[in-house]
Amino acid sequence: MRIVDIIEAKKQGKEHSKEEIDFLINSLMDGTAADYQISAWLMAVYFQGMTDDETAYLTDAMVRSGEVINLGSLASSVIDKHSTGGVGDKVTITLIPLLAACGVPVAKLSGKGLGHTGGTIDKLESIPGFNTALSIPDMINQVKRIGVAIGAQTQKLTPADGKLYALRDVTATVDSRPLIASSVVSKKIASGADNIILDVKYGSGAFMKTPEDAVKLSEIMVKIGKKLNKNITAVITSMDEPLGRAVGNSLEIIEAIEFLKGGITEGDIAELTYDFAALSLVQLGKYSDMESAKNFIKEIILSGKALDKFRELIITQNGDAGVIDDYTKFPPVKYTYELKADKDGYVSHIDALDIAYGCKLLGAGREKKTDTIDYGVGVFLNKKTGEPVVNGETICTIYSNDETKTQSAIEYCKKGFTISGAKPAVGSLIYEIIK
Amino acid sequence: MRIVDIIEAKKQGKEHSKEEIDFLINSLMDGTAADYQISAWLMAVYFQGMTDDETAYLTDAMVRSGEVINLGSLASSVIDKHSTGGVGDKVTITLIPLLAACGVPVAKLSGKGLGHTGGTIDKLESIPGFNTALSIPDMINQVKRIGVAIGAQTQKLTPADGKLYALRDVTATVDSRPLIASSVVSKKIASGADNIILDVKYGSGAFMKTPEDAVKLSEIMVKIGKKLNKNITAVITSMDEPLGRAVGNSLEIIEAIEFLKGGITEGDIAELTYDFAALSLVQLGKYSDMESAKNFIKEIILSGKALDKFRELIITQNGDAGVIDDYTKFPPVKYTYELKADKDGYVSHIDALDIAYGCKLLGAGREKKTDTIDYGVGVFLNKKTGEPVVNGETICTIYSNDETKTQSAIEYCKKGFTISGAKPAVGSLIYEIIK
Repeated sequence: MRIVDIIEAKKQGKEHSKEEIDFLINSLMDGTAADYQISAWLMAVYFQGMTDDETAYLTDAMVRSGEVINLGSLASSVIDKHSTGGVGDKVTITLIPLLAACGVPVAKLSGKGLGHTGGTIDKLESIPGFNTALSIPDMINQVKRIGVAIGAQTQKLTPADGKLYALRDVTATVDSRPLIASSVVSKKIASGADNIILDVKYGSGAFMKTPEDAVKLSEIMVKIGKKLNKNITAVITSMDEPLGRAVGNSLEIIEAIEFLKGGITEGDIAELTYDFAALSLVQLGKYSDMESAKNFIKEIILSGKALDKFRELIITQNGDAGVIDDYTKFPPVKYTYELKADKDGYVSHIDALDIAYGCKLLGAGREKKTDTIDYGVGVFLNKKTGEPVVNGETICTIYSNDETKTQSAIEYCKKGFTISGAKPAVGSLIYEIIK
Repeated sequence: MRIVDIIEAKKQGKEHSKEEIDFLINSLMDGTAADYQISAWLMAVYFQGMTDDETAYLTDAMVRSGEVINLGSLASSVIDKHSTGGVGDKVTITLIPLLAACGVPVAKLSGKGLGHTGGTIDKLESIPGFNTALSIPDMINQVKRIGVAIGAQTQKLTPADGKLYALRDVTATVDSRPLIASSVVSKKIASGADNIILDVKYGSGAFMKTPEDAVKLSEIMVKIGKKLNKNITAVITSMDEPLGRAVGNSLEIIEAIEFLKGGITEGDIAELTYDFAALSLVQLGKYSDMESAKNFIKEIILSGKALDKFRELIITQNGDAGVIDDYTKFPPVKYTYELKADKDGYVSHIDALDIAYGCKLLGAGREKKTDTIDYGVGVFLNKKTGEPVVNGETICTIYSNDETKTQSAIEYCKKGFTISGAKPAVGSLIYEIIK
C-alpha cells in the first residue's frame, strides 16, 4: 500500500477501505506519510467527501492513535457533553454540576480555546487556583468519588486528530463535514463515556452558518456513534446572538453561578441547560419523558444541590470556592463602561460576532496557543433581544483593562446592537434533535 | 497576504491574481510556504482548474524563479522542440541536426528521463564520450558557432517547477492540465528560444490518453505562449505504437543516423521529422508553404548536410563520431533474440506500453534518478503495423545483457504484437496542429 495511491483513490472519488484508512493514520503517526501527502489527501476529501463508513473508520483510527480513557463499569452511566462552540456559551459549566447533582456522573475533557473568548477550561481557570491539569487516573477517581471531573484535553488522547487538525488549520481544509465530524466524535469516544450529548451550533456566531449544514453534520456524527457503539444525541441550536448575558471568562462563570443559585429560570441559558440535562436523564433511562425530567432538574437547582456540587467540584480541583459568594474574588478589571441606548424601542438583534470581536479586542481570547487570556474582561448584555429600552438606558457594560481597547470595544458593541420600534418575536433556540 | 487564504480562494474556485501567484511561488522558493500548504493548493488546482491568465502567471513566475538563458539577437531565429514523451521517440535527435543543416539555429535543453527508456540526453550519452553537461554560456557560444547545441537541463532553470513537480509526483497531482502546461512551457521559455514546437502525444503509450485531452492541453500551452510573447506551435500526434523501429537508447541513435543518412524516407519517423522541420521553416518565415519546405528538407538530407551537422555536433560535444560509420562502437550487448511470427498475416497492432515494459525490464530506462541505464539493450521492431509477415519470420529482435530478463522481455513483446488476416489501414500520426 502506498500513500500516493490512497490520495489518487480519494481524488477519483473512490471509497477507502478500513485498511486504507488505518494505513493512512498509522503512516501519519509514524511519519512514513509526509505532511504534504496528508494535506493533499485532506484537500481531496474536501472535494470528494467521505461515506459514513469511511468517516467511522477514520474516527476509530484516530481514537486508536492514542490513549482511551477506560471508565470501566461507569462508562455506560456517564454523560459527556460537547458544544461546537459559540459566543457566551457557558452551558457546559451550568450543566456539569447540575447533572452530577442529579446523580449522573460526568467526565468532561475540554480544550483550551482559540477564539474570541477562552474555552470552557479557560473560563474555569478564571476561578483562582482552579486546576484543570488532571491526569487520566485522577480524573477517573474523581468521577467515582464526587461524580464529576473536568480536565484539560491531553495530547495523549487522539494525537492523530491533533496532527490532522494542525494541518487542516493551515491548508484551508477545516470546513469539511466528515473531517469535522470525525474530529469531534473521536475526542468524545477517547474520553470514555458511552453517552454523548453534542450541541451543534449554527448561525452567524458559529462555524456552521445554516441549520441545514448543522443537521448534515449532526447526522454524520450520530451515525458514526451508532457504528462505533456510542449513544450520541445531537441538539442543533441557533447561535446568531450571544448565549446568556455574559461574554468573557469570569463574567461567564458568574452567570453560571447565578443560574445554579436559581437566579436565572428563563431565557436561552436556562432553556438549553434544562433541555440538555433532561435529554441526558431520558437518554440514561432515568425518566421516560422530558417534562418529568425537567421538573426534577428544577427541584435539584431550587434545593441548592447543583450549586453545592459546583462548590465541591471547585474545592476538589483546588479552586477558591469563595468566588461563589463573593464575585470580587475573581480577577478585577480597571475600567467599566456602560453603553447607553440612543433611542426608545426594543432590542431586535444582538450580533454574536460583533460582541465576540469586542471581547477579543479586550483580551478575552487568544489567537495563538501562547497568548495569555485576560480573565476579567468582557461584555455584559444588560439588555437581551426582545427587551424594551428607553433612550439613555444601559444596554451593555464593557469590562476592560485598557482605555484604548475600551473605545474599540464600544464601537463593536454599538454596531452589534439593533434597536427597533416593534417588539421582535423570540423563539426557541433548539432547531432539531437528532439521535 | 497569507498562503492559507490563497489555498482557500482556489478551493472556492476563485481566480488568482498575478500578485497571488507570485506570492505563492516566491513563498515556495524562500520556504515561507510549507510543502504541505503547496500540496493542498495543488490538489485544489486539480479540482478547480486555472484560467488561462492564471496559468500564464504561474508559468511566468516559474520562469522567473531561476536563470533564463539569454540568446540575445539569436532568440528570434532559434527553434526549440519538445515532446511530451513517447515510446521510441527519437524525433528530437533526427530533427536537431536537420534543422541546423537547414540554417535554423537550435538550442535544446532536455531532461534525463524517468521511464521505460532514457530521455533524449540519455540516448545521446550512449554515444561514447558525448558530453551533455554544457554550461549556459558554453551552450550559447556553441549555437553561435555551429548552429546547434544540446545540453542536460540544469536545476538553475525553473527551480520552482522542479519543486512543484517533486511534490506533484508524490501527492497524486500530476494529471492537472494547467499544471502540466505551465511546467512544460516554463522550461521552454527559460531555455531562451522565441519559437517553440511542441509534440503533444496521446494514446496508450502517452500521458494523455485521448486526442481530446491532448487538444485541450495544447490549446492552453499555445495561449500561454501568446500571453508571454512566445511563438508556440503544438502538434498533436498519436502514440499508440512505438515510433520507428528502435526502442532503447543506442538502438534509437542508430535509427536516427539511418534517417540522416537518407535511409528512411517513409513511415512515422520520416513523417514527423519532415513535418516538424517544415513547420519550423514556415514558422520562421523561410518558406510560405509546407510542401516547398519539405522539398528543401529532403534535399538537405540527400546532400549529406544533415548527417554532417550531426557529426559536427557529436565532435563538438566530445563524442566519438566514429559511431556514425561503425555501429559496433556503441556499447555492445551479450544476447540478441529474434522473436518469430507464429502465423501468416499482417501486423495489425504493436502495443507501445508492452514494448516499453519489455525495454524497461531489460534495463533501458530508470525508475529512480540514481538508477544507471544499460545503453545497448532494447527492442528492434523488424515488422511494423501494416507489414505482411509469414509464419516463422522475425517480427522483432531483443537486445539484452541478461538471459532471465530476455525471457521476460520476450513475453512482453509476444503480448505486444497482434497479427491478423486483413491488412490494416495505417493513417497519418498527426491529429491536429494548434498555433
